[in-house]
Amino acid sequence: MTRKKNIKKIVLIGAGNVATPLGRAIHSGGYIISQVWSRSEETAASLANELDASSCNSLAKLDQNADLYILSVPDHAIDSILSQFDLKNDQMLVHTSGSLAMSVLKNKTANYGVFYPLQTFSKEKQLGFANIPLLLEADSEVNLHLLFEMANKLSTSVTAIDSEKRKILHLAAVFACNFPNFLYSVAEEILIDKGLPFDLLRPLIIETASKIIETSPGDVQTGPAIRNDQKTIAEHLRMLEGYPGYMSVYELLSDLIINFRAKSQEPRIKTKEQRLKNEAKS
Amino acid sequence: MTRKKNIKKIVLIGAGNVATPLGRAIHSGGYIISQVWSRSEETAASLANELDASSCNSLAKLDQNADLYILSVPDHAIDSILSQFDLKNDQMLVHTSGSLAMSVLKNKTANYGVFYPLQTFSKEKQLGFANIPLLLEADSEVNLHLLFEMANKLSTSVTAIDSEKRKILHLAAVFACNFPNFLYSVAEEILIDKGLPFDLLRPLIIETASKIIETSPGDVQTGPAIRNDQKTIAEHLRMLEGYPGYMSVYELLSDLIINFRAKSQEPRIKTKEQRLKNEAKS
Repeated sequence: MTRKKNIKKIVLIGAGNVATPLGRAIHSGGYIISQVWSRSEETAASLANELDASSCNSLAKLDQNADLYILSVPDHAIDSILSQFDLKNDQMLVHTSGSLAMSVLKNKTANYGVFYPLQTFSKEKQLGFANIPLLLEADSEVNLHLLFEMANKLSTSVTAIDSEKRKILHLAAVFACNFPNFLYSVAEEILIDKGLPFDLLRPLIIETASKIIETSPGDVQTGPAIRNDQKTIAEHLRMLEGYPGYMSVYELLSDLIINFRAKSQEPRIKTKEQRLKNEAKS
Repeated sequence: MTRKKNIKKIVLIGAGNVATPLGRAIHSGGYIISQVWSRSEETAASLANELDASSCNSLAKLDQNADLYILSVPDHAIDSILSQFDLKNDQMLVHTSGSLAMSVLKNKTANYGVFYPLQTFSKEKQLGFANIPLLLEADSEVNLHLLFEMANKLSTSVTAIDSEKRKILHLAAVFACNFPNFLYSVAEEILIDKGLPFDLLRPLIIETASKIIETSPGDVQTGPAIRNDQKTIAEHLRMLEGYPGYMSVYELLSDLIINFRAKSQEPRIKTKEQRLKNEAKS
């Protein structure tokens, strides 16, 4: 038997935007984090101190006796970091990445998985974990069960999901989070350039997001494009003449919203004349 | 003198997404709404009933004796509606549009202005007005003061702003609200197509918006593009092959985020070599 019965002692490899809040949640959940590794000794020590753990900045000095190793580093760094330490086959290893397949871990140990918190983290802002969807995957039912046990202590939203579907969620999250945040930046830049305070937009941004807690975003789309208000669209494009990139964004998204409108109205806008035309065609 | 001293009796022309919550807020603020007009008698009656007002669906039957007429209809309908009623010069008329200039009202009465609530409204969702920025404009200081008096009873955020700046805010609001909401729809469509629940993204959407209450969105940008993670970007583009429009959006926004990253890192990434090159050039 190469699998562990329980997760008691954990090593956290990474001390960045994801590792920090995850480490805090795991610590609060009553688990022992024995060690925190970061490339920077200072970063490692700072988080380790918070989590009652020891710290190290050399992968050669990794605690050899933990049950679970959580690898929470940028995707591009994973291969290089994996090559710098060994595990025993009864130790479990998980990564926290949305886009990397679970299989990147399969040569390190017989027990591995993924522990992906679907949220946008910044080290600065402490965030309750209770509502964050935790998406889990493991090499075996038994290991999946062990990860569920831990995850259930951190969040009320725990789901098993395979690598392929996790990648799709990660892609959708780029549209739902990263791109909207960038559009907030665009709005801020336009306002600042004209001496207007971004504060005026903050209630709108919050309400736009809050609206979709209970509705489908397609049902609450507002703005010139969903009204096919070509006059306002044309005026906005003129106003964006100094911002060629943002003008392209405006044009592309407005076109897609107008198409979306046409699609969602299709069954409704069919007049008698249109119906007769369609019938004549068929 | 053609100006009114006080706003007591109000007529609401419109009963749509903006007129409905605005009417409710004005009514709660202690003002008398004497009449609600809508093209549809049923819509007019339903809102009028809530506001203790009478209703009408003919502009010829508009109450002749109100102090303030609030025109809250789609931009494209304003000209036609304006042509169907007359006011006395001592009656005030305002519109609630983000993009229309105040001057569209100047031939109807000597007293006019704009009362623009910067928010995304749906009739279905009742919304507290207290935090909604109200942006005001008027033809005179006296009328601006009258509108401020009323606005201050509805919201803690009241600002005087001219037509040109209001248009810029409206444009910025398209980027901060309408486009993000459409991107939520895109995320939802991608998930539904693969049998994944949109619910998993809702906490992320709320947190992304909440994050910028106290920060600048440019400081908290996350995702593959801001890391210039070309491997993930290429994989996401491959995954979007069935969605040519969304692929274009992904590509365009990622390019802009990568440029944004380059700009914001400029002062930091200068290595000695780059500095020497720059010095050689100058």
